[in-house]
Amino acid sequence: MIMREVAVVGVGLSKFGERWDAGLKELMAEAGVAAIEDAHISSNDVEMLFGGTMASGRFMGQEHIAALMSDQLGFKNVPAVRIENACASGGSALRLGYISVASGIHDIVVVGGVEKMTDVTSAEAGTALGGAGDQEWELFQGITFPGLYAMMAKRHMYEYGTTEEQLASVAVKNHDNAYKNRYAQFHKKISVQDVLDSKMVSDPLKLLDCSPISDGAAALVLAPLEVAKKYNDTPIRILASEQASDTLRLAERDSLSGIKATSIAAQKAYKHARITARDIDIAEVHDCFTIAEVMAMEDLGFYQKGKAAKAIADGETALNGKISVNTSGGLKGCGHPVGATGVKQAVEVVWQLRGDAADRQVKGADMGLTHNVGGSGATAVVHVFARAD
Amino acid sequence: MIMREVAVVGVGLSKFGERWDAGLKELMAEAGVAAIEDAHISSNDVEMLFGGTMASGRFMGQEHIAALMSDQLGFKNVPAVRIENACASGGSALRLGYISVASGIHDIVVVGGVEKMTDVTSAEAGTALGGAGDQEWELFQGITFPGLYAMMAKRHMYEYGTTEEQLASVAVKNHDNAYKNRYAQFHKKISVQDVLDSKMVSDPLKLLDCSPISDGAAALVLAPLEVAKKYNDTPIRILASEQASDTLRLAERDSLSGIKATSIAAQKAYKHARITARDIDIAEVHDCFTIAEVMAMEDLGFYQKGKAAKAIADGETALNGKISVNTSGGLKGCGHPVGATGVKQAVEVVWQLRGDAADRQVKGADMGLTHNVGGSGATAVVHVFARAD
Repeated sequence: MIMREVAVVGVGLSKFGERWDAGLKELMAEAGVAAIEDAHISSNDVEMLFGGTMASGRFMGQEHIAALMSDQLGFKNVPAVRIENACASGGSALRLGYISVASGIHDIVVVGGVEKMTDVTSAEAGTALGGAGDQEWELFQGITFPGLYAMMAKRHMYEYGTTEEQLASVAVKNHDNAYKNRYAQFHKKISVQDVLDSKMVSDPLKLLDCSPISDGAAALVLAPLEVAKKYNDTPIRILASEQASDTLRLAERDSLSGIKATSIAAQKAYKHARITARDIDIAEVHDCFTIAEVMAMEDLGFYQKGKAAKAIADGETALNGKISVNTSGGLKGCGHPVGATGVKQAVEVVWQLRGDAADRQVKGADMGLTHNVGGSGATAVVHVFARAD
Repeated sequence: MIMREVAVVGVGLSKFGERWDAGLKELMAEAGVAAIEDAHISSNDVEMLFGGTMASGRFMGQEHIAALMSDQLGFKNVPAVRIENACASGGSALRLGYISVASGIHDIVVVGGVEKMTDVTSAEAGTALGGAGDQEWELFQGITFPGLYAMMAKRHMYEYGTTEEQLASVAVKNHDNAYKNRYAQFHKKISVQDVLDSKMVSDPLKLLDCSPISDGAAALVLAPLEVAKKYNDTPIRILASEQASDTLRLAERDSLSGIKATSIAAQKAYKHARITARDIDIAEVHDCFTIAEVMAMEDLGFYQKGKAAKAIADGETALNGKISVNTSGGLKGCGHPVGATGVKQAVEVVWQLRGDAADRQVKGADMGLTHNVGGSGATAVVHVFARAD
């Protein structure tokens, strides 16, 4: 089957953080208008909207978010669909936007992601996020998300000798990158010792091993590659868009020290794009907890199993390292408004490939990858991007 | 752009109602397994899953529902995505399933819809459903969904002289049809007087003008038309799949006596299918309230504006009438588990077109339509189906 090639022709981001100044609608408008202007289109040109959000119902009492987003951005009665796949809502929305352009059914498609998480208490937010796991078998029994990832961390440490210091180095690197990103929630460098000294959340994960509760939105404009230059001088091509799932319950997985859905989605993406992991220059990976970035680096094929933690601690994945990972600051440093994250990852990669990443620009960034995980790994979405010229 | 034709090759439904015997997982399994068996496939054959649910987060504490559905049905690490568009979640999921098969990216796709609504109080359910409208401008101000539709009913009565008796006749017809459907929530015939005598909910809508709170699930298996006979002797072709949106807030609409998103989606669907409304033999339309069915009959082009209510009261849309509408019993009689409804509508149309609708079979049903609305009309999805032979 011949499908059309798809390109990103516009990107937009809201400031991430505790956005007491903005509600759901304002955040969507901030990112959406920026993306539309970046693509040099008017809102009348948009033919379909995909909106990713995880739990706007529980955070804000608001479902039906894509129709709201379409209305708010002045789109003309276009089909609008909300996508929810826990923390992978944004990545899944991007994949469906890609399919709808590739299919030939729609030309100009907007993919948005948003979450407004700070209008509820931390406890309420934690409960809402718990809905990403198996409510009956995990959350109702008392475990929270840090607990699920802590079990994975313990297993990874047991199998491969991964240390708490190595995990901490993920957070240190991502705060370093976030320091250079004006959209990031945190602009504060931290040390390994700061992480180790921070409050224990779920052994071995401490507060600074965990991504924060955040407000934020992100948006992309997609178009067929063949006409992409009409909209933007530097269109970024989507080389692959793949997704996989696994059991919702951690207890039923083949392994606790890796995320199988990531491996499957990555292998399919490399095959579709006819590349290997070695071709990737920059990657935004899903570091909801520091252990998650370690597993991602292995499951994506950047490092052999058990080898990533030391490499990260040695600086191989820092800005302009062997591979530059989470140049935006990642979920840890840039913030993690869950529905927006998967879309924000693509925005960062587009900026890097265009050469528009300012102080955090990676030299010679030609090919980039995004990796977005839902829950404890029941969903994983992998996209590969490259400059179109 | 040449796309592939798409067919429905399997359908499944759970019993609708107050299902104290079943949770979310059991309902999904009931419908999903039936659809898979109906398509004569194994769960290993499925390549992608779309799961529609509106508010499982608020009803059950469970998000990430598509991954759960995929896990529960034994699918093999396939991409699974939850679609939420309020009460049009199921219809929107079907449209994305259609696009993903039409695009050539996936062959065998399952579309499921589910909602488990009776584990919370009616007040909690009403608040959760309120998330389908504009939380800040409508719900927070105190109006509920019956209130929004009551305003539309009042306006329709003012503009066209529609009467409460005519509205009541919608509920009477749909209970008549549900009486013949073993999957329906209600098996109780009612009279116009019963409706008029029932408790006032929001003037002029009384209890029996309103669809109920329900548990239930529905599922479809889609395949490329060219290979559909491999799976089912009577594949049903999807002739058109269209969707439109409108402002989330009722106050900003052009008209209160019709749903513009329905008209737009219907006109696009007729154009795509190269038919007119007159070619449709059977239709499942979105009767969340009796006034909604009256507006649907007009907005879909079956009747001129202001003419549908009398025609319904005169029996023109009864089983084997001029056009047979809501043969399943509709949302009113069959029940309205919100995320399942749009998928259930397609299941009923497939049964009718196959000639498998038992006591409620419409004679000579060759072409059918489904019409699924989100909220007070910010989303509308229209599908047209026909026998493939």
